[in-house]
Amino acid sequence: MAEEKKKEKAEENMVFVGKKPTMSYVLACVTQFNGGINEIHIKARGKSISKAVDVAEITRNKFAEGAKIKSVDIGTDEITTENGDKINVSTIDITLAK
Amino acid sequence: MAEEKKKEKAEENMVFVGKKPTMSYVLACVTQFNGGINEIHIKARGKSISKAVDVAEITRNKFAEGAKIKSVDIGTDEITTENGDKINVSTIDITLAK
Repeated sequence: MAEEKKKEKAEENMVFVGKKPTMSYVLACVTQFNGGINEIHIKARGKSISKAVDVAEITRNKFAEGAKIKSVDIGTDEITTENGDKINVSTIDITLAK
Repeated sequence: MAEEKKKEKAEENMVFVGKKPTMSYVLACVTQFNGGINEIHIKARGKSISKAVDVAEITRNKFAEGAKIKSVDIGTDEITTENGDKINVSTIDITLAK
């Protein structure tokens, strides 16, 4: 129980951008800011990276005025495909703070 | 003539990522580093942003060892479409330094 709570807490200020429409993730960010979170990590891998930048920019410019891009980190993850091949995929972590 | 030279100089340390294959832009970065440039701006807009991150990561990890991500800036440009509509497009500017 305590561990479950801890896990929830750890993911509280993160938004993982994937295949849903951009505005779903913008809404997730706005909801977190309105719930009292002051710093959100917007994360994505591969082709979703462009969408993560859109999410950060739309949230900042249209919905959470005063929010700023605190940092942008890029990196590489090695993932194993279904065939057992190892491939590299780029990652982004945008920290948005108000 | 002097102005032309100035313009060339200004674009010397920039790589604009667009529709070509990723490795074309990696090659452009490697060529600039080998030509004596110590700091390259990798820029992209919209869906090419993911590719720009790939270009920076592949250049840094495979071809220009010792090169580091100095900064990553994201922003929004307003562009006018053929129909005269104004739309917002996200941008990225990755500074890679060796």
